[in-house]
Amino acid sequence: MSLKAISSKDAASLDQDLMEIGGWSLDQLMELAGLSVSQAVYRVHPLSSGKNILVICGPGNNGGDGLVAARHLAQYGYTPSIYYPKPGKKDLYARLQTQLRALSVPILTSDSDFTAALKDTSLIIDAIFGFSFGGPLRDPFPEIISQMEKSRVPVLAVDAPSSWDVESGPPTEGPGSNFMPEYLISLTAPKPCVRFYKGRHFVGGRFLTRDVAEKYGLDMPRYQGIDQVLEVGVDAEGRL
Amino acid sequence: MSLKAISSKDAASLDQDLMEIGGWSLDQLMELAGLSVSQAVYRVHPLSSGKNILVICGPGNNGGDGLVAARHLAQYGYTPSIYYPKPGKKDLYARLQTQLRALSVPILTSDSDFTAALKDTSLIIDAIFGFSFGGPLRDPFPEIISQMEKSRVPVLAVDAPSSWDVESGPPTEGPGSNFMPEYLISLTAPKPCVRFYKGRHFVGGRFLTRDVAEKYGLDMPRYQGIDQVLEVGVDAEGRL
Repeated sequence: MSLKAISSKDAASLDQDLMEIGGWSLDQLMELAGLSVSQAVYRVHPLSSGKNILVICGPGNNGGDGLVAARHLAQYGYTPSIYYPKPGKKDLYARLQTQLRALSVPILTSDSDFTAALKDTSLIIDAIFGFSFGGPLRDPFPEIISQMEKSRVPVLAVDAPSSWDVESGPPTEGPGSNFMPEYLISLTAPKPCVRFYKGRHFVGGRFLTRDVAEKYGLDMPRYQGIDQVLEVGVDAEGRL
Repeated sequence: MSLKAISSKDAASLDQDLMEIGGWSLDQLMELAGLSVSQAVYRVHPLSSGKNILVICGPGNNGGDGLVAARHLAQYGYTPSIYYPKPGKKDLYARLQTQLRALSVPILTSDSDFTAALKDTSLIIDAIFGFSFGGPLRDPFPEIISQMEKSRVPVLAVDAPSSWDVESGPPTEGPGSNFMPEYLISLTAPKPCVRFYKGRHFVGGRFLTRDVAEKYGLDMPRYQGIDQVLEVGVDAEGRL
């Protein structure tokens, strides 16, 4: 099974439809997106694989998804840390940070804390940039992406590997040109850059309806049971 | 395992703490509460037991939890219907109804539609009143509760069996005096009336933190893995 991709422009328009026509709030969409991310983590990296998870969050909604995922991971028994060098301005991001502090999840902002956390983590969640990334990378992100790229710790990318152009894939040089996360979770639908991706691929965000899927020419992922995440290219029996 | 109960007054205060101190929005709390309800349904009443589920929603947040649960159930492949005779006034309830309409979930408001739906359902979700119910029942709820009570269809009650006093349990006479739902899901923590309850009991709402649990003298439910719901009185191996 493969799923049709959605362009960056259409993904933005779809989100807008969900909120302006579909009755969704950003709080609700982000809750389910982040929950999907946490379920993908639990599947590829169970607690026995290591509890320390470093969630690198960008300033926008991709970072917000990472914050929600970290909250769920803390509830599952992981010990996530957040690296949030450029906190976003929306009130929702401030509230998500308050929720994380109540769970004693550290929120790091300095590059030295990031470097230390990177040495002590068993998984990285790349929640830096999502479908709206158009480049170029601005400080401090080139350095962060270089460090993720060089690290031997497995990475799960949220929606798109950060630094990749959402349409045309990895940059030809500089930070990110050798960045190939072990895991990718596409939210709602894969983005065009997925054709350059080699690794385990999931889809999440179980709020798509048939009408919206039809409007944007998307497939309805065949989620199983109560799962909020589906591995793409794997059937219900777990075969590729 | 049994869990400490929380009074109606403390449950209200706990919700207020989550929102005013903890950074939670009602959208987020209701999303996770409704998700828990949907997971409890999936566990006690899998798709093979019947897809038609009648969700009876009251005018407050208990009804809102029912609306969210119905949305998730529709995504799982059930065919829920909502009976919503007195729609609540919050904007969130209107948005949840918009989301349900996008999934073609019928929202019934007349008692004749309710009576017809009752004949054609395999499970009822009682999302009429929750921890803030102080009685007495006002129209049209006495009649609705009588019909649930007389129905042979199994009922899953959300937070408290409707008509029961949250502290002192079932009414001694009239509608609800013989109401004993097959299933109950307590949100955050059981309410005192749970001591009168005989049936399968679940807890949901996986957003409680240790600090809040401590403040209100509650136990932290030992949710397993990524579950958003826990059967109370059953251990991890499924033994009572």
